[in-house]
Amino acid sequence: MINLKQIFEPKSIAVIGASREPSKVGHAIVKNFVAGGFPGDIYPINPNATEILGLKCYKNVSSIKGKIDCAIIAIPAQFVPGALEECGKKGVRGIVLITGGFSEVGNVEGERQVAEIAKRYDLSIIGANCLGVLNPAARVDGIFLPVYKMARPRVGDIGFISQSGAVGGCIVDLAAYAGIGISKFVSYGNATVIDETHLLEYLGKDEKTRIIVMYLEGVRRGKEFIKVAKEIAKKKPIILLKAGVSKKGAEAVKSHTASLAGSAEAYRAVMKQCKIIEAKTLMELFYFAKIFDQPLPKGNRVGIVTNGGGYGVLATDAVELFELELANFSEESKKILRKNLPNYVNIRNPLDVVGDADSARYDLAINTLMEDPNVDIIVVVVLFQTVAIDSRVISVITRAADQKKKPIVVISTGGEYTEVHKRIFDSYGIPTYHSPTAALDAVQKFVWYADFLKKNKRIG
Amino acid sequence: MINLKQIFEPKSIAVIGASREPSKVGHAIVKNFVAGGFPGDIYPINPNATEILGLKCYKNVSSIKGKIDCAIIAIPAQFVPGALEECGKKGVRGIVLITGGFSEVGNVEGERQVAEIAKRYDLSIIGANCLGVLNPAARVDGIFLPVYKMARPRVGDIGFISQSGAVGGCIVDLAAYAGIGISKFVSYGNATVIDETHLLEYLGKDEKTRIIVMYLEGVRRGKEFIKVAKEIAKKKPIILLKAGVSKKGAEAVKSHTASLAGSAEAYRAVMKQCKIIEAKTLMELFYFAKIFDQPLPKGNRVGIVTNGGGYGVLATDAVELFELELANFSEESKKILRKNLPNYVNIRNPLDVVGDADSARYDLAINTLMEDPNVDIIVVVVLFQTVAIDSRVISVITRAADQKKKPIVVISTGGEYTEVHKRIFDSYGIPTYHSPTAALDAVQKFVWYADFLKKNKRIG
Repeated sequence: MINLKQIFEPKSIAVIGASREPSKVGHAIVKNFVAGGFPGDIYPINPNATEILGLKCYKNVSSIKGKIDCAIIAIPAQFVPGALEECGKKGVRGIVLITGGFSEVGNVEGERQVAEIAKRYDLSIIGANCLGVLNPAARVDGIFLPVYKMARPRVGDIGFISQSGAVGGCIVDLAAYAGIGISKFVSYGNATVIDETHLLEYLGKDEKTRIIVMYLEGVRRGKEFIKVAKEIAKKKPIILLKAGVSKKGAEAVKSHTASLAGSAEAYRAVMKQCKIIEAKTLMELFYFAKIFDQPLPKGNRVGIVTNGGGYGVLATDAVELFELELANFSEESKKILRKNLPNYVNIRNPLDVVGDADSARYDLAINTLMEDPNVDIIVVVVLFQTVAIDSRVISVITRAADQKKKPIVVISTGGEYTEVHKRIFDSYGIPTYHSPTAALDAVQKFVWYADFLKKNKRIG
Repeated sequence: MINLKQIFEPKSIAVIGASREPSKVGHAIVKNFVAGGFPGDIYPINPNATEILGLKCYKNVSSIKGKIDCAIIAIPAQFVPGALEECGKKGVRGIVLITGGFSEVGNVEGERQVAEIAKRYDLSIIGANCLGVLNPAARVDGIFLPVYKMARPRVGDIGFISQSGAVGGCIVDLAAYAGIGISKFVSYGNATVIDETHLLEYLGKDEKTRIIVMYLEGVRRGKEFIKVAKEIAKKKPIILLKAGVSKKGAEAVKSHTASLAGSAEAYRAVMKQCKIIEAKTLMELFYFAKIFDQPLPKGNRVGIVTNGGGYGVLATDAVELFELELANFSEESKKILRKNLPNYVNIRNPLDVVGDADSARYDLAINTLMEDPNVDIIVVVVLFQTVAIDSRVISVITRAADQKKKPIVVISTGGEYTEVHKRIFDSYGIPTYHSPTAALDAVQKFVWYADFLKKNKRIG
């Protein structure tokens, strides 16, 4: 029986292949568990060491008295079957098999052997050929990459399933840098035992996960995947990037995670059917994910506030491109804006509060649109290059967002000063984009999903 | 007669509206000229001050004895005609009119007056309602935005014409942050006298400018623009983002720079006819511009090197999406790679040098593709999250790029550690992208333009 709780929320873990050598994978894993503040027992396994990083070292799992929920394996492929047998006998049921060198390089027999042992002992195995698992809330950090290269995100509500370790690591690092939180992260590589459908099902039930993000190269059990995805999509958004959609891309997939990629058309049809949100690029995966923390939009009418006229034009172009609607401000809003804004501000949507706008002017504009019944989504362009704007705009926008009445997204482009502010917005859960196109693309997906939920409720 | 040299390369400048008040535009301009190391004479004009930032202050331009090439005007709109009259009488022919409040807010009469005075005195005026001019090589910094908000780029060969000050400021800031250089930057706002065609013509002839980037909301003299663009495109790439392509976007343009936006279809047809490279988004403008510093590709065959399998798949998908070709490595290359790379590396394109690749492995792979007659463009994915890669890969890639034989582009995604390295690559002239899609999109435009140049040469 597949049991993922022992892998994502273990009370005790063993690291098979723990090493005293700082450059080794088996060292980094022990170190990251210790440094990450894992509250359970950590058992390093290495027949040639007595102590690693201050922890007592064991010859094998059998010599450990206590219960072990999960073993993380980082030893050469030829020793893996033996280690799995030992785990089976000891009663360790959760396995993260980091080791590569199986079917992805033609060692089909080795992989078959792993699967056979798993079946015999009822092992739940993540991998082979994977990066492993993160669960910030439970302080589980089973990733061997150094923290300075791949930062660890804070606790949040995005669950991220990535077949590829590299893609997973990059997006996790990007999320951490932007201050965006995750509930769980897993890279599952060859899917020898546990596949994307198992993981999707698990995150679907996981209360800590509100948004599911997936990078897939192939799907093992198509029918089951569709069934599971359909059910989950009614409750949580699923955002999916399918790689290997081109002919040559599909060939590349085969030598990467030994998956069958399938045709682009077939996958698109499935996503449509399941109400999965398709990301067409890596950055879309990230851009779409972060908007879903906002309150659901009630419609598709966009109100734009900007301190740069050109950005108002570009955002308006993007509203049309993504088939959204430019809101007509209510008479009440127009009255308030006309009364309180300088006379050189044109009272229209996009609302160009002009280059000399300060935080107070943004406050007035945003709060007026927040009360306007004709506006469903607020898009705020903040160009930090201009003279009168500074960090006070952060509290203006976060205060408005905290009302949780309407989604707010921010657009900012620039260098260091801008980047620092963008990351602060993101870390407060306000999705921030470097261009109008990226922002409105995400808004469109959000509006589409909100509409699906509304219709589904009415029918269901 | 239009003369732009006196504006972009003045020997002496006057700042009309110079102020002692640090928060004022007229203060910032004087300050930025002084701090930027402008080698010519700087004349602050202010009837109520005797000295500004250590410089002697003048009541008006007439009271200055020396010649003034260019006057930068930052006084309220109602005082502008008077100041222009004075400039005309004094013989100042170059004007940067930063002041807004003309036709963009309905003051058509004010703008007509400016145009009339310009005609009478033969003034070349940039603006009204603009951000001004940058020329890093001549140390001309007429932008009133503080340096910490909008960084100034190093000297380079991209000339950037932006109708919108905000869009211009953002992209300039972004370029500076990435270490990308510019030859000239100009934001020209309402185009009262000098329009996009004058500026395009100037940069077309400017020897310091090899790549022209434009953000336009409208075009004043369509026929002339087409004629000029066609000629320049045969020598230098022109990359253009046309804003206001949607119906509502066109309306927004009207209240921004008082331009007539024109239909999207008409503009696309013109761009195609003129061999202008169309950027559809703000970021494309930036992404496309930076690839053109690389040597021209001889064909469309892409060789991919990656330390992450998933990125190999995504890059391959992008090659197909953008109608490029995945190169078939030569037998010679395969032999070298097979002999020198670890046996678990699949010798194929995309070349996944695997997660444990170090700089030496990249060196071998890149140099092999550099010699391979079947490869026209090298796309290098460097995922800095992996354990064995570090900053040494920078010298590996810059050394290869310095041979100037084939274009090299880099793809990297991640947080702080990655971002620092990306900026270093960009600053060395190696265009770096955060996603395979963004990179291959730029490669496509580059291949297309190289192909046009080749064909044009053959015909011409």
